[in-house]
Amino acid sequence: EVDVEIRGHFFFQAEDGIRDYDVTGVQTCALPILRDIDLPTIIGPDDVKIKMHTVGICGSDIHYYEHGKIGQWEVKAPMVLGHEGAGTVIEVGENEKILSVGDRVCIEPQVVDKKSKEYKLGMYNYDQQVKFWATPPIHGCLAPEVVFPGDMVFKIPDHLSFAEGAMVEPLAVGMQGATKAKIKPGQIGLVMGCGPIGLVTALAALAGGCAKVYICDILSEKLAVCENYPDIIPIDLNKENLSQRIMKDTDGWGIDRFFECSGAVKAYDAIFSCCSPGAHVVLIGNNAVPVPMNWSILFAKGLEFHTVHRYSHQYENSIRILGSGKINVKPLITETFNFDQSVEAFERAAEHRPKDIKLQILVDY
Amino acid sequence: EVDVEIRGHFFFQAEDGIRDYDVTGVQTCALPILRDIDLPTIIGPDDVKIKMHTVGICGSDIHYYEHGKIGQWEVKAPMVLGHEGAGTVIEVGENEKILSVGDRVCIEPQVVDKKSKEYKLGMYNYDQQVKFWATPPIHGCLAPEVVFPGDMVFKIPDHLSFAEGAMVEPLAVGMQGATKAKIKPGQIGLVMGCGPIGLVTALAALAGGCAKVYICDILSEKLAVCENYPDIIPIDLNKENLSQRIMKDTDGWGIDRFFECSGAVKAYDAIFSCCSPGAHVVLIGNNAVPVPMNWSILFAKGLEFHTVHRYSHQYENSIRILGSGKINVKPLITETFNFDQSVEAFERAAEHRPKDIKLQILVDY
Amino acid sequence: EVDVEIRGHFFFQAEDGIRDYDVTGVQTCALPILRDIDLPTIIGPDDVKIKMHTVGICGSDIHYYEHGKIGQWEVKAPMVLGHEGAGTVIEVGENEKILSVGDRVCIEPQVVDKKSKEYKLGMYNYDQQVKFWATPPIHGCLAPEVVFPGDMVFKIPDHLSFAEGAMVEPLAVGMQGATKAKIKPGQIGLVMGCGPIGLVTALAALAGGCAKVYICDILSEKLAVCENYPDIIPIDLNKENLSQRIMKDTDGWGIDRFFECSGAVKAYDAIFSCCSPGAHVVLIGNNAVPVPMNWSILFAKGLEFHTVHRYSHQYENSIRILGSGKINVKPLITETFNFDQSVEAFERAAEHRPKDIKLQILVDY
Amino acid sequence: EVDVEIRGHFFFQAEDGIRDYDVTGVQTCALPILRDIDLPTIIGPDDVKIKMHTVGICGSDIHYYEHGKIGQWEVKAPMVLGHEGAGTVIEVGENEKILSVGDRVCIEPQVVDKKSKEYKLGMYNYDQQVKFWATPPIHGCLAPEVVFPGDMVFKIPDHLSFAEGAMVEPLAVGMQGATKAKIKPGQIGLVMGCGPIGLVTALAALAGGCAKVYICDILSEKLAVCENYPDIIPIDLNKENLSQRIMKDTDGWGIDRFFECSGAVKAYDAIFSCCSPGAHVVLIGNNAVPVPMNWSILFAKGLEFHTVHRYSHQYENSIRILGSGKINVKPLITETFNFDQSVEAFERAAEHRPKDIKLQILVDY
Repeated sequence: EVDVEIRGHFFFQAEDGIRDYDVTGVQTCALPILRDIDLPTIIGPDDVKIKMHTVGICGSDIHYYEHGKIGQWEVKAPMVLGHEGAGTVIEVGENEKILSVGDRVCIEPQVVDKKSKEYKLGMYNYDQQVKFWATPPIHGCLAPEVVFPGDMVFKIPDHLSFAEGAMVEPLAVGMQGATKAKIKPGQIGLVMGCGPIGLVTALAALAGGCAKVYICDILSEKLAVCENYPDIIPIDLNKENLSQRIMKDTDGWGIDRFFECSGAVKAYDAIFSCCSPGAHVVLIGNNAVPVPMNWSILFAKGLEFHTVHRYSHQYENSIRILGSGKINVKPLITETFNFDQSVEAFERAAEHRPKDIKLQILVDY
Repeated sequence: EVDVEIRGHFFFQAEDGIRDYDVTGVQTCALPILRDIDLPTIIGPDDVKIKMHTVGICGSDIHYYEHGKIGQWEVKAPMVLGHEGAGTVIEVGENEKILSVGDRVCIEPQVVDKKSKEYKLGMYNYDQQVKFWATPPIHGCLAPEVVFPGDMVFKIPDHLSFAEGAMVEPLAVGMQGATKAKIKPGQIGLVMGCGPIGLVTALAALAGGCAKVYICDILSEKLAVCENYPDIIPIDLNKENLSQRIMKDTDGWGIDRFFECSGAVKAYDAIFSCCSPGAHVVLIGNNAVPVPMNWSILFAKGLEFHTVHRYSHQYENSIRILGSGKINVKPLITETFNFDQSVEAFERAAEHRPKDIKLQILVDY
Repeated sequence: EVDVEIRGHFFFQAEDGIRDYDVTGVQTCALPILRDIDLPTIIGPDDVKIKMHTVGICGSDIHYYEHGKIGQWEVKAPMVLGHEGAGTVIEVGENEKILSVGDRVCIEPQVVDKKSKEYKLGMYNYDQQVKFWATPPIHGCLAPEVVFPGDMVFKIPDHLSFAEGAMVEPLAVGMQGATKAKIKPGQIGLVMGCGPIGLVTALAALAGGCAKVYICDILSEKLAVCENYPDIIPIDLNKENLSQRIMKDTDGWGIDRFFECSGAVKAYDAIFSCCSPGAHVVLIGNNAVPVPMNWSILFAKGLEFHTVHRYSHQYENSIRILGSGKINVKPLITETFNFDQSVEAFERAAEHRPKDIKLQILVDY
Repeated sequence: EVDVEIRGHFFFQAEDGIRDYDVTGVQTCALPILRDIDLPTIIGPDDVKIKMHTVGICGSDIHYYEHGKIGQWEVKAPMVLGHEGAGTVIEVGENEKILSVGDRVCIEPQVVDKKSKEYKLGMYNYDQQVKFWATPPIHGCLAPEVVFPGDMVFKIPDHLSFAEGAMVEPLAVGMQGATKAKIKPGQIGLVMGCGPIGLVTALAALAGGCAKVYICDILSEKLAVCENYPDIIPIDLNKENLSQRIMKDTDGWGIDRFFECSGAVKAYDAIFSCCSPGAHVVLIGNNAVPVPMNWSILFAKGLEFHTVHRYSHQYENSIRILGSGKINVKPLITETFNFDQSVEAFERAAEHRPKDIKLQILVDY
């Protein structure tokens, strides 16, 4: 067991007991070590217990695994990762009226305070006391069984797989972005960044009314997935001048809805050069550093800026839109690992291969 | 030439001269009589001249043909019908900067006053002085050539047919409805009335964000077209209880966006019984008579009501959404008549066959 | 005690015990009889107990007193009336964190279910299971002491009287209307009906951005109160033609925001004749009967219709706007009765004197 | 005549001919020199000719006077300054239907292209080809007579002075800000910067629905004017910690509407620390340099950002709100100079005295 240069923590609950790993730095090459973790198993009157089936690995999971913290949130104690989960209800609390044992479900991973002013106002995702799964010190769902409040657990239709169910969480981020964008039917969207969030945002923008959506990236391998989506138009920033292309395609007017999903400072330059007068800009990608905004120039286009922080009220709509087939997330699932290969899964994720979009872990196999 | 019980007027400009018909009543069985009509042929500096290719027959055309008036608008002099038109630009005025000779186009059939307050406010469709094609006393476009202001003429992409181009006009009504509904991605829509406007509204609502749209009618033959659209769910009002079905499918919550496209008073009953709290109701279908609204009941659901009167700013978005393939209007075009069969086309339209959705006339064949 | 032609029930809790009255019909002239009523006195962990100071008489209180029912809500058992209340906190539950003993407060008289979907969505006033004070079978607050959930009890600043605090409830209705109207600063409003709700709506519309508000009524005595409010322009419908006046004052354009507060079918005629294109119409007044709406005419003006059912999230804003002096409700309080004169107060209210705007009862005198 | 270190241009049209001044640098101390300027005097069919009465000096006028340019706009030829003007109509073009000779008016100083897409969409202030008065190379209105399109000239009521009429232009900026903020009645506003734009924004926010508005500055002299406005609460940033004060006053929740009017980078820090979850931020003040925005922190509060670039559709509403007395701009007019003292007026303006809010020039005295 090596404690030098620990670059993060990865903990999961295995079938044969609860264990965790300390993931040590690349240079020492030490392997994660298993450790016991206590997860709550008693359900309250408003809770349900879920046997987990599939859990996706999110960029934040990888970040905690590699770096042990994101901004103000720091992993200070062993923590179970994972917040993109689907499974089957195996027990319901006495107050639960909608869910039943045997229901196939996905989970909205935030526990919010119903007495908060934010909740009362209908924007529970801004509850400053929210307990979000796999954000320290709250444990995630990469475990055989979890207990969660029933009002944040949603049934999925029979024809959706658990793998698709576990995609509802990232899709909900894109849906929140598309909802905030107030798209008018037939408008044109532009998404900066072709990572998982860029892709679900592009899909949500299309399903949410855009006639077509451009997506761009500096890594051409990432753009290859667009072959599956005829209405998503890939632009390789190394080969094409973005604003020239956009202005040519739109007769000099510009696009209607701009989605920043790259987290790159440079991407913000495209706002002024690609947007039409009165366009809406939705900021989704997290930047590690402040972004210089040239407001006095931006004013002249009358833009409206919205920001996305997780999501609220998106699960039912996201499940419905997956269920209708309007959005197909299957091409985004690059590879699936078994639960006992979780360390391999995280090591693979930490490689950040351009062609890896979503890696998932099969807990129940 | 018989003038007894004239039930309407049908006029068109033929290739070998300008003629018109008086359509006399069924009982006298007299045939329409040809008459000359002068249409303007000189283009102003902001105009373009268009060689018409395809013109659709709208419900209002049929109504003028049969009854000679709609509400306050009465046909008092020979009038060319038709306002759903597509063709090719054959001449452009000196100020026209966007269109060129040879462009394949469709036409937004309203001439609006750029000096009006409505225009300045961006809602030109409420311009009280608007000149709308084929609304008396303004001539329509069922003619070999028409002259029109260039800013209301829009290019269509090469892969769209003129028949599809002539569908942009009715589609724009549905798009206006879907735009006013402010649909959030993944919501559920309900359309009352499976006529042409109900169908384009359902298609626009789907393309504009709904995960699924119910459409209902009392004529089961009309609903048959839904076979072509898997996300449009037909409900036969003679076979099913609408609100029971809706409430069962939505776990008692109701639908999110309601579109009235039937023009039937009875359809309004479904607003309260099918809508969820906070739903938006978009009224599109014209009623011949006032509709009793039980407001004190409706209040309890916090509904928001929007109305649709033609459209504004919908042509570019409608063409784009047709071009992307997100909306396919081809299954709505039931039959096409040649220009010299125009009388037959209108007589057929006046039969109101349940399976006839859109009849079109090929002017240039 | 006469039980013939009972026209309603009026019950209140007196200082020397809990009593109630049966109010008998005019013809028999019998007086209300006192009866004991059990009101809950034990506070839960989230509740507070309030010593009532002032309670206003609402139109619905009078209606129950006179007729025993409003629509589907029928008084079937003795019920304490009153839901416009202000007083002082005398006990707080263990979970209450904001309120303290001695706080001067007013009460939002609806108990809502925090687990409902409506609450989660931020529109708790549409909770179909809401328990609203003095709506059968829920008791009101015309009593020496009441127990209520702390999250619906709001502090009032020291310089506001309890009488003003008891006006927050009706004002909140007007504020809900003004909020739904989405007024742009400097617009023109028109309020139909110069009763208490019409007046608080006019005041809220002014405070909420209107440069001026017209108010009209068929009873000239009601309009006299406008002397106190220079920006509220009274129009006597018996002396002036409303739409001619409006169109003259607005150069033929019409008003921007229309508020129906009369509950009279005839008032709806003014919507089309007085509104500008694109105006918003807010419906607040309850109609006993369905209102015929001539939608096909209304379409041509592109109106947007909003409905008001009580209010949500309006207490803090209403108290703040009263506290700032932007709205002065004192001229609306016509007369105050002591608690032991409650029967006289209700008999006076049932006279419906045109000059009576708000009658209040001083519980703690 | 000294041409060394010309720091800008100040030109005006005098009664006895058209002249201009070159304003030379402080070090040379040379006085401005008079020069002839040709202004158009022939009116077109849609124009009116106005005898100017009062013209206010805007910050941009001072900036051109001192520095000769603002961002991309550079004074390269003699230019008449001034765009805040009021006067009397002395001639009308043949198409003008609303204005008459003798009308007292104020002027919206932008000539927009009615054929532009921006105009058609109702947002003419984003017309990229707009001709804005006193923005190079377009002449302003500090001249005895001007010719302007009639649709941008608005009547003022008899009881408003020309001085107030000339305040409509800056007020319109504040009104645009208050309109974009979509204020709900009774909310709390916060304005950064107590200059002329900060003050008209605070006044517009109050008139537009805020119950109270905080305004802050680093110069205490500027805040002294708030004595005239009881609902505007001044905060001296040198004496008080802004966010502590705001959080104390709002029980830790924060303000609802934030207006940046200072143009200072540091002011942006207050957005996160003072705003409530879901607040709207309106950016009005021009920054000379890009502003670093810490988006990943800002996301957590779900803020919505709007920008203000001049105004559209604000003159009628601004005149109405001045006319009703809801906004009183008289305390903002610090001093008035006669036309022949214009150089003194600009020299005074260039001193940037903290107590100078608005300086005006009386052209017709």
